[in-house]
Amino acid sequence: PWQFNCPQKIRQNPSSSAGQRFPLSDVIEAQQFDRDLLGRIFDVAGVMEDLEKDTDAHNILKGLAGEVLTTENAREFSSAAKGETLEDTIRTVEGYSDIIVLRHFKSGAAKQAAAAATIPVINAGDGPGQHPTQALLDVYTIQREIGRLDDIKVGLVGDLANGRTVRSLAYLLGKYHGVKLFFVAPDVVKMKDDIKDYLTSKDVEWEETSDLMDVASKCDVVYQTRIQRERFSDRTDLYAEARGKFIVDKHTMSRLQSHAVVLHPLPRLDEITVDVDSDPCAAYFRQAKNGLYIRMALLKLLLKVRCRRAFKS
Amino acid sequence: PWQFNCPQKIRQNPSSSAGQRFPLSDVIEAQQFDRDLLGRIFDVAGVMEDLEKDTDAHNILKGLAGEVLTTENAREFSSAAKGETLEDTIRTVEGYSDIIVLRHFKSGAAKQAAAAATIPVINAGDGPGQHPTQALLDVYTIQREIGRLDDIKVGLVGDLANGRTVRSLAYLLGKYHGVKLFFVAPDVVKMKDDIKDYLTSKDVEWEETSDLMDVASKCDVVYQTRIQRERFSDRTDLYAEARGKFIVDKHTMSRLQSHAVVLHPLPRLDEITVDVDSDPCAAYFRQAKNGLYIRMALLKLLLKVRCRRAFKS
Amino acid sequence: PWQFNCPQKIRQNPSSSAGQRFPLSDVIEAQQFDRDLLGRIFDVAGVMEDLEKDTDAHNILKGLAGEVLTTENAREFSSAAKGETLEDTIRTVEGYSDIIVLRHFKSGAAKQAAAAATIPVINAGDGPGQHPTQALLDVYTIQREIGRLDDIKVGLVGDLANGRTVRSLAYLLGKYHGVKLFFVAPDVVKMKDDIKDYLTSKDVEWEETSDLMDVASKCDVVYQTRIQRERFSDRTDLYAEARGKFIVDKHTMSRLQSHAVVLHPLPRLDEITVDVDSDPCAAYFRQAKNGLYIRMALLKLLLKVRCRRAFKS
Repeated sequence: PWQFNCPQKIRQNPSSSAGQRFPLSDVIEAQQFDRDLLGRIFDVAGVMEDLEKDTDAHNILKGLAGEVLTTENAREFSSAAKGETLEDTIRTVEGYSDIIVLRHFKSGAAKQAAAAATIPVINAGDGPGQHPTQALLDVYTIQREIGRLDDIKVGLVGDLANGRTVRSLAYLLGKYHGVKLFFVAPDVVKMKDDIKDYLTSKDVEWEETSDLMDVASKCDVVYQTRIQRERFSDRTDLYAEARGKFIVDKHTMSRLQSHAVVLHPLPRLDEITVDVDSDPCAAYFRQAKNGLYIRMALLKLLLKVRCRRAFKS
Repeated sequence: PWQFNCPQKIRQNPSSSAGQRFPLSDVIEAQQFDRDLLGRIFDVAGVMEDLEKDTDAHNILKGLAGEVLTTENAREFSSAAKGETLEDTIRTVEGYSDIIVLRHFKSGAAKQAAAAATIPVINAGDGPGQHPTQALLDVYTIQREIGRLDDIKVGLVGDLANGRTVRSLAYLLGKYHGVKLFFVAPDVVKMKDDIKDYLTSKDVEWEETSDLMDVASKCDVVYQTRIQRERFSDRTDLYAEARGKFIVDKHTMSRLQSHAVVLHPLPRLDEITVDVDSDPCAAYFRQAKNGLYIRMALLKLLLKVRCRRAFKS
Repeated sequence: PWQFNCPQKIRQNPSSSAGQRFPLSDVIEAQQFDRDLLGRIFDVAGVMEDLEKDTDAHNILKGLAGEVLTTENAREFSSAAKGETLEDTIRTVEGYSDIIVLRHFKSGAAKQAAAAATIPVINAGDGPGQHPTQALLDVYTIQREIGRLDDIKVGLVGDLANGRTVRSLAYLLGKYHGVKLFFVAPDVVKMKDDIKDYLTSKDVEWEETSDLMDVASKCDVVYQTRIQRERFSDRTDLYAEARGKFIVDKHTMSRLQSHAVVLHPLPRLDEITVDVDSDPCAAYFRQAKNGLYIRMALLKLLLKVRCRRAFKS
């Protein structure tokens, strides 16, 4: 876990949605967000983005960055290596911090940490579990690039069974109207039934197909993902087959509508060829940058809660 | 080693004990501190604690935090891996720093580093050697929780042979009047004769016992420690026996006097059961937090020395 | 790769060489620098050095330090471990940074990174390739210690075949007039022909010798280097022989002219004996400190380019 010390500026600046309480005290999973809440987060992320473009306001942005204490390899170098529980680590670290951003190899670790903590916890990915800030930046990027989240067609491509980002994204898109999803996945990593059932219950249309070119021509967003080698253990033959099946290349790009975009949570291997990078429809590096604004917005909104807490106690 | 760049605020602010010279230029071992010096450090730590509670003064606190360059794994990634001596590393690093906080696997490394350095060195634990800042925060916590360090009864529990914190704590308690110590340890990790002899020479009463319940009912402070697996190499049978012998649980807590506290240097395994954590007498997380104030106080006091040095040269 | 966030001070302060464009947008290899450019960098480094001595200006210096996000072990913990290309890493990281300082195990990585980046890249060593900031601090140190770079005699000692610093230094010295170089190397690690040919083409005199005492008595600068064990694989006999051959000790120092200095890029093993450290002619720790000023100067000069770029776009 790494820590983030509460910047004064955040405490002093009036919020853009002053008077309105931010309802979350932790960010643990995509299920916590509805469209209103997503809208409020997007507003704050937009303010962050504007600030960065204004050179004079650059130092405000820097003020928001606070001070970060990080550990890259807590599994080996923290007290966890001596057998300390996650709860004890959290209770120790929160004495020195204003917010905890936790990346952990175990599913459910973020919820466990939030239960132990008296300060906000942000889940930065807990194993095969959730990665909610990635999902938030994905929908924020669609809003920024396409201009709307209602009435869109989205193709989800690649490892749909294990990819936590694509599962969370499907979940969040279920909050909007008139969304149609296309699932394009190798047989061994098809979208699982829990997400399909959820979408059906939300009246979200979906279909499975293996015609990537057709999907490219119809969709507003093509969301490509990496086939993860570690999911195949020693079945390298299956991995090789799955990995080569659905590639986004110049040929695929030529079928896109001019307003459409290709997204990818990164890192990328060869599921998007590099000659595509210069295409204006290739939006994945802009998407990565949006992660900065979304995470700043979450820090700002969550720290307000903390500051309120501090004043009450 | 990691570095701490001297904050301006420290240089400019008048010290709370202005005019009085801080006598240490490095913090290497518990033996360096007498009760007067401990009192001065406690005063500064108390100021730090007050500052943190005052929200408006929070930025003063942040100013004291300075800028830290850290390495988690110097053994592998620093020039030490190429065979550089500790002295050469220190002489290089001090060119970029105002103070060096060193954690090292070798006993005596802090003294060796201080001899080479022209800036202050703080020993943050050198192998089985000393860990003086832990000992300082331990006595500071007793002062804060019990209100005094004279005329107290302290039970030291667990690994008393190898635990450097408990040995340093016994050493520091020898500076106070009317202290009585109880040693509660499995046979294989009993308190060693050097500390017993030192205490006897200082007229500190001590006794060995295996009756933890009796100790709990008599003491102002029960100081529990972890049995360290690495001390038993392949004798897992001895480890298991030692580890299970003296556990602080709800039953033990029920015997404590209402003003008494349980301390632990952390990390904890199961030598204190987690159902004890919510008991107001369980003070170990408050103790961990006190580490922040004590270390800030040391930085402030040592950096004054450095600044004086800088002005002279 | 680690990142450096552009400090406001740099953007606002007028440069000491205002109006004059800094011609580089990246620092990749020693070949990029001519004497005029070296002179301009030295001027800025000198300003940095003066600032540090002025206590009141210390905070200006601190402002220049910016905020650094670092990773010690990107090979294991970054997305590179999942197969991400260096280009993709750079494109992601540049969204959060103002400048990238890259240390990489692969020769040519810095050039590759600079081609992908839209922000400045500084090569902090790419495998057996270049390490230009080390070469710059070396010539800066000679200028500071000896007072000139023209008309000097320099002895290069140790591993001249593999040492990238000594090769870069020879290259830069080729820019000055009346330089004479002496190569003192064990047979297995002699200076290679490409550098000899380059020097000859620049009318730089050079000779090979094994008489270190004679070189010490004639030179203004003795530049000692470490024999790197990893270059000898399993030929430990050759390594031992090479390592013991040319040692700078008190006896060697006694032959130096009083104005002469011994330099070393550090880390040092036993090729300079420790009893030499206190000799005023032993300049290697001052040399290490100069690295701070040179790198600050490069940051300042390169960030101006970036800020100009930002204002134009």
